[in-house]
Amino acid sequence: MSEQPAVLERYRAEIEAELRSVLAGRQSPLYDMMRYHFGWTDEKGNPRTGPAGKALRPTLCLLACEAVGGEYRRALPAAAAIELVHNYSLIHDDIQDDDLERRHRPTVWSIWGKPQAINAGTAMRFLANAALSRLEDHGVPLEKRWRIQRLLDEATLRLIEGQYLDISYESRFNVTVSDYLKMVEGKTAALIACAVEVGALLGTDDNGLIAGLRRLGRSLGLAFQVKDDILGIWGQKQDTGKPVTSDIRRRKKTLPVIHAMQKARDGQKEELVNIYQNGTLDDDCVARVLGILEATGAQAIGQEMTDRFCREAIEAVDRLALLPQGKRDLTALASFVLERRY
Amino acid sequence: MSEQPAVLERYRAEIEAELRSVLAGRQSPLYDMMRYHFGWTDEKGNPRTGPAGKALRPTLCLLACEAVGGEYRRALPAAAAIELVHNYSLIHDDIQDDDLERRHRPTVWSIWGKPQAINAGTAMRFLANAALSRLEDHGVPLEKRWRIQRLLDEATLRLIEGQYLDISYESRFNVTVSDYLKMVEGKTAALIACAVEVGALLGTDDNGLIAGLRRLGRSLGLAFQVKDDILGIWGQKQDTGKPVTSDIRRRKKTLPVIHAMQKARDGQKEELVNIYQNGTLDDDCVARVLGILEATGAQAIGQEMTDRFCREAIEAVDRLALLPQGKRDLTALASFVLERRY
Repeated sequence: MSEQPAVLERYRAEIEAELRSVLAGRQSPLYDMMRYHFGWTDEKGNPRTGPAGKALRPTLCLLACEAVGGEYRRALPAAAAIELVHNYSLIHDDIQDDDLERRHRPTVWSIWGKPQAINAGTAMRFLANAALSRLEDHGVPLEKRWRIQRLLDEATLRLIEGQYLDISYESRFNVTVSDYLKMVEGKTAALIACAVEVGALLGTDDNGLIAGLRRLGRSLGLAFQVKDDILGIWGQKQDTGKPVTSDIRRRKKTLPVIHAMQKARDGQKEELVNIYQNGTLDDDCVARVLGILEATGAQAIGQEMTDRFCREAIEAVDRLALLPQGKRDLTALASFVLERRY
Repeated sequence: MSEQPAVLERYRAEIEAELRSVLAGRQSPLYDMMRYHFGWTDEKGNPRTGPAGKALRPTLCLLACEAVGGEYRRALPAAAAIELVHNYSLIHDDIQDDDLERRHRPTVWSIWGKPQAINAGTAMRFLANAALSRLEDHGVPLEKRWRIQRLLDEATLRLIEGQYLDISYESRFNVTVSDYLKMVEGKTAALIACAVEVGALLGTDDNGLIAGLRRLGRSLGLAFQVKDDILGIWGQKQDTGKPVTSDIRRRKKTLPVIHAMQKARDGQKEELVNIYQNGTLDDDCVARVLGILEATGAQAIGQEMTDRFCREAIEAVDRLALLPQGKRDLTALASFVLERRY
């Protein structure tokens, strides 16, 4: 039921080929750090193969393009650009969170140090703009290229604003669900909405349809992050690559914890805040946090919220004038976001 | 003789007004960090006034526009964009170098922490693109806006590549003057060349003239950095805001040190490498380094190199078909780069 839908495989090889050709010929060791991050090489620069990321965002971009009747190949440079933006944010995020592992491998900063990882991340974000400029080779008119560039740049600002909030919540204990959603709008939903909008823009001139798909992307992005928060606590290591309860150990103020801090009865609320303020977080603390989350129904609340955003997305698919295959694919992706275990 | 030339004051108020209006209405605390960095507010957000930066890059942009017969006001959004790119790089640079002070004030990261300073820096780089989009209000055609956007994005990649090299040289003791120049081409000259090119592009359609001005900008950028390296060792605190020999204390592999490591006689070369590899660097070490730099004529070599690049720039000014006032202004700026004490 939570098997990866076929659509996540459909464009994978072409997305990777596009990414590789954006990086091809770039000589600075900065780009070697990026090739490592994408899993194409080991830390010495030797080629390797291994499981890749989900490529959800570029897939959504290409899918949106096809769903409105466009030729997806034309959107490949934009799909690559969006994947570059996403991965820039992962490289910086790992630095900011002191995370040592990503996708079962050492993070870029843990190998090359934070100063150079900052450089690699920011440079990757500018490679995204270089990738976009390849739309010209596909005959995309300048007006559209400019509009897409603006969308991608603006989504990046939203993403950073969300990342700012996420970090600022670490030292706050009165974060509300509404604060949380504001953060997720930026950190996750902005780029996913942008991916869908840009794909649509490359397949149609119908601005109403483009705006509808953007809203669909936003709902999907919100659903995706809430589900991520559930998996960060209750996901299994063999699925997510992270130990169960990893977000508790890292003291992340994800939705279940925010919900519990708002809803727990008095003694438990203070206990939770105390644990999160405390210097060390041992197995006993984790067990107590899990107990409080259960007592407040935090997992169910998270799953209900994911359901709601996924339903919004699926209803949007139904309403919009999309090709039948596109409707099926987008619905399958929304169901995957809802049911996924990783 | 090294008084600040009047041209550095000419556009200052308008550049700052443009920068302020790019930031106006942006609510996230991210933008408050930027207002602090620019010296408009203190760390609590209260307005303050104080000495501003030189604004060399935006001034060059506006000057180039005027020198080819353009209306400089049209180039204000581009000048602001270039200053934003420069300042993004300063915010990240301070993080990477662990620098606590910039322009006599605590650096952004030293107040808000490195994770949020990474966000503020990257976001500032994207505000530069938002600033550029304001060229539309000045009637700049889309083709030019697209071309300028590409130039600015490409200059940013060059800048990061240079920054990568600069950091990588910290752990190397065989850096040559040619390695150094490759680093400076990226770290400093790329953005200064871009500033001049973009200004020219907004004032003329003559591609030969634009390319000539770009080369002039590159020479000026190289001169500027070499002079900076001299000032980093022999500059006076009342002029530069940094203690004399500050770059030695920070173990920076700037041109004088690289020159000395290549040219010092055997015993001194090893002494220099030993001091730079050593954990602590006391006053005695600094004095010994200064002695070795003097023995190899490092300061004179640096000044000769600055002379050469400035002469290249001034000769380019003579050759190019620029307005007489523009020639005078650009020559005055080149002389300032050569003679400046700060």
